[in-house]
Amino acid sequence: MTVLWDALYTNVNLATMVGGYGEQRDGALAVSGGRIAWIGLHTEASHKARTVHDCQGQWLTPGLVDCHTHIVHAGNRSDEFEARLNGATYEDIANGGGGIMSTVRATRAATPDELLRQSAPRVASLLAEGVTTLEIKSGYGLTLAAEAKMLRVARRLAQTMPVGVATTFLGAHALPPEYAGRADDYVDAVCAEMLPALAAEGLVDAVDAFCERIGFSNAQTERVFAAAQALGLPVKLHAEQLSDQRGAELVARFKGLSADHLEHLTQDGIDAMAGAGTVAVLLPGAYYFLRETVAPPVAALRAAGVPMAVATDCNPGTSPMTSILLAMNMACTLWRLTPREALAGCTVNAARALGLDGQIGTLEVGKRADFALWDIARPADLSYAIGLNPCRGVVNAGVLRHPVVSLPD
Amino acid sequence: MTVLWDALYTNVNLATMVGGYGEQRDGALAVSGGRIAWIGLHTEASHKARTVHDCQGQWLTPGLVDCHTHIVHAGNRSDEFEARLNGATYEDIANGGGGIMSTVRATRAATPDELLRQSAPRVASLLAEGVTTLEIKSGYGLTLAAEAKMLRVARRLAQTMPVGVATTFLGAHALPPEYAGRADDYVDAVCAEMLPALAAEGLVDAVDAFCERIGFSNAQTERVFAAAQALGLPVKLHAEQLSDQRGAELVARFKGLSADHLEHLTQDGIDAMAGAGTVAVLLPGAYYFLRETVAPPVAALRAAGVPMAVATDCNPGTSPMTSILLAMNMACTLWRLTPREALAGCTVNAARALGLDGQIGTLEVGKRADFALWDIARPADLSYAIGLNPCRGVVNAGVLRHPVVSLPD
Ligand SMILES: [Zn+2]
Ligand SMILES: [Zn+2]
Repeated sequence: MTVLWDALYTNVNLATMVGGYGEQRDGALAVSGGRIAWIGLHTEASHKARTVHDCQGQWLTPGLVDCHTHIVHAGNRSDEFEARLNGATYEDIANGGGGIMSTVRATRAATPDELLRQSAPRVASLLAEGVTTLEIKSGYGLTLAAEAKMLRVARRLAQTMPVGVATTFLGAHALPPEYAGRADDYVDAVCAEMLPALAAEGLVDAVDAFCERIGFSNAQTERVFAAAQALGLPVKLHAEQLSDQRGAELVARFKGLSADHLEHLTQDGIDAMAGAGTVAVLLPGAYYFLRETVAPPVAALRAAGVPMAVATDCNPGTSPMTSILLAMNMACTLWRLTPREALAGCTVNAARALGLDGQIGTLEVGKRADFALWDIARPADLSYAIGLNPCRGVVNAGVLRHPVVSLPD
Repeated sequence: MTVLWDALYTNVNLATMVGGYGEQRDGALAVSGGRIAWIGLHTEASHKARTVHDCQGQWLTPGLVDCHTHIVHAGNRSDEFEARLNGATYEDIANGGGGIMSTVRATRAATPDELLRQSAPRVASLLAEGVTTLEIKSGYGLTLAAEAKMLRVARRLAQTMPVGVATTFLGAHALPPEYAGRADDYVDAVCAEMLPALAAEGLVDAVDAFCERIGFSNAQTERVFAAAQALGLPVKLHAEQLSDQRGAELVARFKGLSADHLEHLTQDGIDAMAGAGTVAVLLPGAYYFLRETVAPPVAALRAAGVPMAVATDCNPGTSPMTSILLAMNMACTLWRLTPREALAGCTVNAARALGLDGQIGTLEVGKRADFALWDIARPADLSYAIGLNPCRGVVNAGVLRHPVVSLPD
């Protein structure tokens, strides 16, 4: 019997990202049944393929993974952005009904179709840059019905656009006005009503919370995590963004997938993450947009061997960013990640932050055939350029597409 | 005789930018002979048009103008970017032949076709964001032949891609190695040989210099300006980027079009610019990429009524940026321009920085029909979003095109 591959991408340089980086120059990669079937020198391809793509010396990387987004939401907050630049204070904006609650109101009011329609161009912006997998959080509904609506839209995006979506339930994102002064009651509802119902519907791949003085306490977060654990769901956390709440230690105690933001992370938190294998998800867009000055402890994370991921944190209030290449540049420029670390942060380590490192994130035989083709001279070009998109093709589970995708109807 | 327009763009909101901003909601705009023929309420269009475009409530702005770029160059400097992030010092890189001279070597070595081929994707990135006019500087050749090659490629880009190009001769960008220790001799060559020959060939729309401790002195810059003045050419200047060299006062004395960068500008410089009508061109990409901490005096420029423009400064060493929307976001986020100031900075004031404000930069009857159509709710969305491109169509001299353009052969 003759083995025949579905497709062979040849005359290509591979950034395999195996073991954090890994390179195969003058290589080739074969696809069969939506998976990577073979990788080697382009002169040594051992079988024939139905389709052969001459990549003309361009580069292949794993499909990029944006492992932290709030990309499903209605409205934007450009009005607040403009008001602040015209002199309004945060207090003025809060008194005017602005801030996160304006996004909650808009998201609650939107029909599912409208929510999908508004979110799709943001997703398309990421897909044009080689993103093949995207995490999407709830957290602007804050009722069972509205959180379910957000997560169903997240699933529909995966059905209507060429992207894999990992959903995260973030009911403990902010205290809804209905529960003003009763945060523990809201946490009860999150744990006892919302999470079980959403999980039963298959809408929850992971559970997250916003552990912060202006969010939920460490003790409240622990209750959310216990509820997740009882359902067998992995956890992750918005931790140490604005202050140290010992969130990293907490998420590590639950063997969490990731702790995210981490500007105020301590060495104790780093040690706990290293021990638990928890990924540090770095979100430079929010740091940039909020003009923060305390950077996450990148050198100490590196020294401790904590895997670092990089994501857009796409959200209307603190990081209206839909370019993962720019997140990579910011991680390098602002926080001194190396270009290889930034690329690992959007591939292998991002996959791990979603618990998907067995399936995606590297170019390895047996993994899903998700990859991106780039017109670059070297992988560092991806982190170096600001606002240039050298993506020339994307493959999702073996299917080649143009980087620019059309929007769902 | 019946007046018939070539095209009518209707059901559209116009950000006219007349007088710095200007809005026409529920408007329409007619084009005839490549110029704007009429603007008004969409219910009041007075003539028929051969083609009617229903813009479905989207926004029209003037075509964006990137008024400061070094976009024609060969190679990039991602290797230095990566080396620095891996611990190399600037000295290491200079000793290894890096820095601006590596770009000079690559640009000198490139054939004109190769220079065009490498520059075109960067130009295309800007055109996808609604840019219709682009300034391109020489300055990586530093010989008559190589500077001429760069400027001819700049002209060819305007012939082969849908964009207007304003050329700037920047012979006094850096001291070429052939003139080491003889800067005044090089300035002699710039003034007496290079500039007259390039101007005679019609390659020079304006003359620029890099006035800085590590560039050319105020006195040397004055000689370059005098040579430009003798040929009737307008001047502009890289001024006060790293230190105060009284460059703004100098360029104002020559009634220059613009002084650019300006992080270390003093009140005397601001007063001089205000008196001369010289535009302040702000370049946040370089400030961001170099991690500078001294911002240009935006509030004082605003108070003095100095028009502010915003540009990418696209160059391989200090601002590898090919997104003008991101330059607008950085101007707002990092330097607190308002979104209206940022948009004026890439339209009306950028046109003025090129001496083209009589022809482009606003939506006004009689001006060239250069404009961009945006899928946004309000103009501030253009400055607010990071990495999203809501451009849905671009009109160059009356001709409608898709934002994404194909590259020249
Ligand atoms: Zn977040
Ligand atoms: Zn410059």
